[in-house]
Amino acid sequence: MKLAVVQMSMSSELQDNLEKAVDRVRTAADQGANLILLPELFEGLYFPQQQREERFQLSHPVSGHPFLGRFAEMARELKVVLPVSFFERAGQAHYNSLQMIDASGEALGCYRKTHIPDGPGYQEKYYFNPGDTGFRTWSTAVGAVGVGICWDQWFPECARALALLGADLLLYPTAIGSEPPEADSLDTRAMWQRAMLGHAVCNSCYLAAANRVGQEGEARFYGHSFIADFRGEILAEADDHSETILQAEVDLELARSFRAGMGFFRDRRPEHYRTLLTLDGTTRPWKATELL
Amino acid sequence: MKLAVVQMSMSSELQDNLEKAVDRVRTAADQGANLILLPELFEGLYFPQQQREERFQLSHPVSGHPFLGRFAEMARELKVVLPVSFFERAGQAHYNSLQMIDASGEALGCYRKTHIPDGPGYQEKYYFNPGDTGFRTWSTAVGAVGVGICWDQWFPECARALALLGADLLLYPTAIGSEPPEADSLDTRAMWQRAMLGHAVCNSCYLAAANRVGQEGEARFYGHSFIADFRGEILAEADDHSETILQAEVDLELARSFRAGMGFFRDRRPEHYRTLLTLDGTTRPWKATELL
Repeated sequence: MKLAVVQMSMSSELQDNLEKAVDRVRTAADQGANLILLPELFEGLYFPQQQREERFQLSHPVSGHPFLGRFAEMARELKVVLPVSFFERAGQAHYNSLQMIDASGEALGCYRKTHIPDGPGYQEKYYFNPGDTGFRTWSTAVGAVGVGICWDQWFPECARALALLGADLLLYPTAIGSEPPEADSLDTRAMWQRAMLGHAVCNSCYLAAANRVGQEGEARFYGHSFIADFRGEILAEADDHSETILQAEVDLELARSFRAGMGFFRDRRPEHYRTLLTLDGTTRPWKATELL
Repeated sequence: MKLAVVQMSMSSELQDNLEKAVDRVRTAADQGANLILLPELFEGLYFPQQQREERFQLSHPVSGHPFLGRFAEMARELKVVLPVSFFERAGQAHYNSLQMIDASGEALGCYRKTHIPDGPGYQEKYYFNPGDTGFRTWSTAVGAVGVGICWDQWFPECARALALLGADLLLYPTAIGSEPPEADSLDTRAMWQRAMLGHAVCNSCYLAAANRVGQEGEARFYGHSFIADFRGEILAEADDHSETILQAEVDLELARSFRAGMGFFRDRRPEHYRTLLTLDGTTRPWKATELL
């Protein structure tokens, strides 16, 4: 099957961003893509750069959502799997969410970003409730696909859980770029890729990340969207500024066969992993009663 | 503090290997190293290449061990931290073990390799009981050090557990090389490094691996021992055939400060990690009663 990753820039105009995303999805489908990954929150500028009360108005509930239906129709028409990131309002809560739309146009369900960052230029804890769906791997027309959203990509727990839930392909819609001076102008680009290539290798999964590009206020989003195979070899990679569509053939059966041969999922020792369920490294599990 | 990594080849003669290791440790200490990492099972050839009953005779109990005492004396004399890998016999069990020797010469305890590989050329399940010590991070004269042994290096659970237990530095004594034709002559070298650089980034820890070199029967051990910083930048790396000593200055306080700023250990969500305690991806934890 053919996987496409869209790297694009966004403006403050919702409609312009949607038209651009629709155009890119149609182009990728024309080129033969069966699954098309768009960047995180492509509906607008990366609003969590600052804490502003009025920006909560950018969120929408799933029911009667302004564009999820349109993307579902397009997925059905083009017969492509389409994971769509959006800013969700749900009652009084707000989530950084993704709806997985199958090639039939059916919405398979939502994933709400589990790990929420907080730091200069990335004020997500102000906007988003920590996700409450847990990690989700979906059985789609092209195979078993797991999705993490941006900050999730730094957490080995997320990738491992998705793989344990059956994923052969790990996807990460992303919005990451330069850090402001108060964060020492740290360049995270190489680290960002290293973390994910590690996940690809340790889980023997194909992996793709779709990032945005462009200057938005103080931040310059650094692109470098990529597709890697189950050994962490990069199959396609964008530069740091171009709007582009990456494409790669991926063979999920091959990944599964390779994974069984490597033996990582044969040799795991969960009886020694209790520390992972703690925050402070004690052997006391997080709310032990919850585990039963 | 200064970290040294020894890359060397081994012969079938225990005494020759010990003299070489002692010589390398003394040289590294002369060059200012405070912690010196030797490769996995440097006492001999990589015996698990084949399944041979007589090779169990290469194991020794900790009590009255033929060389652990000598290395402890040397650690005390040179004031260096010295993790020493060895083939352990314990009652009727056999382990791929490591004794952590502090710069005072004190043995801080043993770690027994948790994850045991099995595949053409790496018949470790024939020889080693799966380790029963759990992951261990030691408080040493140079700081908090966690050790995984070879195959452990492919498991994000091991690195994460060691970091949760306080490690600022992750060490991996290793024996890895070419795969035989029945394993499709797979070249694991790049994957091997990618997996560990991912751990360095995701845990914001310094990380080092010490591999062996040389032809041993069908296998050619590929070296490429390295030291990486807490962003996954490689500070020093060996080639695929040379006997050498790598050295790098590492600042564990700096790693700790950077780690807190990145926020990975602030944003973890253990309540969503229950899948990690399963082998089959169900939400039923491994022996739930064990968790209490």
